[in-house]
Amino acid sequence: MYIGVDIGGTNIVAGLTNGKGQIVNKVSRPVDKEWGADELCRQAAQVARQAAEIGGIAVTDIQAVGVGLPGLVDNETGMVIQTPNMAFSNTPFRALFQKEWDVPVFLGNDSNCAAIGEYWAGAAKGCDPAVVITLGTGIGGGMVLGGKLFTGSANGGMEVGHMCIQPNGVLCGCGNRGCWEQYGSATALIRITREEMHHNPKSMLWEYAEGDLKKVNGRTAFQAARQDDPSAHKVLYRYLQGLSLGLINIVNVLQPEIICIGGGISGAEDDLLLDPLRKLVEEGCFDKAHPPRIVKASLGNDAGIVGAAILCNMV
Amino acid sequence: MYIGVDIGGTNIVAGLTNGKGQIVNKVSRPVDKEWGADELCRQAAQVARQAAEIGGIAVTDIQAVGVGLPGLVDNETGMVIQTPNMAFSNTPFRALFQKEWDVPVFLGNDSNCAAIGEYWAGAAKGCDPAVVITLGTGIGGGMVLGGKLFTGSANGGMEVGHMCIQPNGVLCGCGNRGCWEQYGSATALIRITREEMHHNPKSMLWEYAEGDLKKVNGRTAFQAARQDDPSAHKVLYRYLQGLSLGLINIVNVLQPEIICIGGGISGAEDDLLLDPLRKLVEEGCFDKAHPPRIVKASLGNDAGIVGAAILCNMV
Repeated sequence: MYIGVDIGGTNIVAGLTNGKGQIVNKVSRPVDKEWGADELCRQAAQVARQAAEIGGIAVTDIQAVGVGLPGLVDNETGMVIQTPNMAFSNTPFRALFQKEWDVPVFLGNDSNCAAIGEYWAGAAKGCDPAVVITLGTGIGGGMVLGGKLFTGSANGGMEVGHMCIQPNGVLCGCGNRGCWEQYGSATALIRITREEMHHNPKSMLWEYAEGDLKKVNGRTAFQAARQDDPSAHKVLYRYLQGLSLGLINIVNVLQPEIICIGGGISGAEDDLLLDPLRKLVEEGCFDKAHPPRIVKASLGNDAGIVGAAILCNMV
Repeated sequence: MYIGVDIGGTNIVAGLTNGKGQIVNKVSRPVDKEWGADELCRQAAQVARQAAEIGGIAVTDIQAVGVGLPGLVDNETGMVIQTPNMAFSNTPFRALFQKEWDVPVFLGNDSNCAAIGEYWAGAAKGCDPAVVITLGTGIGGGMVLGGKLFTGSANGGMEVGHMCIQPNGVLCGCGNRGCWEQYGSATALIRITREEMHHNPKSMLWEYAEGDLKKVNGRTAFQAARQDDPSAHKVLYRYLQGLSLGLINIVNVLQPEIICIGGGISGAEDDLLLDPLRKLVEEGCFDKAHPPRIVKASLGNDAGIVGAAILCNMV
């Protein structure tokens, strides 16, 4: 059996999985912002071991642990090169983890883990190429090609959120302007929602945000659109235009058989999100005879854990 | 020995190649616009056979013929699905070719052939991933990944010219707006040059175009820039901005180890083309520690022939 660990900025979640990529049980622990890299690695190893113990499996029966985390990781050297908003930076993750628990450890980028998870155990089973796009704080992407994870020349492939879709557009955290994630991420949807609220004090968006711009989230516009609020429809129209552009670029460069959309926003109902998105992408798709299937990622928040566990078998 | 055939809108060129992808001799024949698909296939077979005969090789010693042409081709069925500006459309190319000369025939898209050529016998030798971008009437692209040609799910991968880099931008032949090839192709450079000439009747661009907008070509702006004409520098600045955006997107999605730039424009001197282009791409590259090498495609007009010949061994 394998353990998959998903390390995020808020929680460490570990799952005990069987050979089919199914999660048998899960354990999680909140991340303390004060932890340094050493402590984070130690904690990750502890949570992983707990997942085995609580599942009634002797730690010696665990063949390997896969770990997914945001940013740049290098499985060959076992290093975490760089992650946003976390203590890791050129950290010998594998060595530090193994100090606490000496087990084979495989590292992967969290978006890549999600892609692996959806390909082997989720909505993208058997699709080639299979692309998974995660809409969160930014936009993550991963691709499985001929059954193998695509990594680019230096583990930095599929930084799709940083395609430029609007020259001289919104400033991005990466320092460039007009990056896709400034138009298609959950963060972007929240920004666009707030901008619209600013212009329309009477919009129902205000109700769903309880009159407080700080309470706007990725669901607000969908909730108000469900009540046919014109401002909310305007927000979604703008958001879907931006979101579709990056997808169109991915389609015209890679012609994936399937694109799975993950992240909290993908929970929106199809008539407000995936249906109009499919239409926009088909319009922009060059090879009109072969548009990709665009579907909801099926593993939800578990994709990272499942994919990290599968990583152990794959790399 | 193998024969590679490159079918374009103007000429059919066939090359006899040795096992190393080197061209031993070449034969070409102009394309008559009146030819239908049947005649084009027959002519291609004749030119291919001539390349063997003139090279002093018995046609029975030719193991296979590879054919590259623009548009959508399907090697499995031997069909040419669709090509721009040519008589082919759902044409059983292989069968028609073999009616004239019964030899194994392999089909490929011309940009893919160029990528294969550069990877096996040109500037991208051993690079992974290796991307080749051809700047011509449009923008073509091909990628070799782990030594294998990338094709997407239905032979339509790498239609990179149709990434959208400018929402609501210039109308493209594909029906969409703001496609990369409207900003980065040779055609785009000519359009931008003419626009600038329109605004600046005193620009040296007029001299190099002999006072005639119709005589503007892909070299005009480079020639005038070499004489330090400010308008020409403005043209190149605009053109390089647009050209760089698509390259940045390719880099952030695929992180290729190398990008080879082909097409007539790539003949411009480095200080006016590749040097500023490299700088722009490095600025927009997300993983700053691993920018791609950007180089001139080394096989020039022969890349298609060489790649088509190699196709016979590769598919």
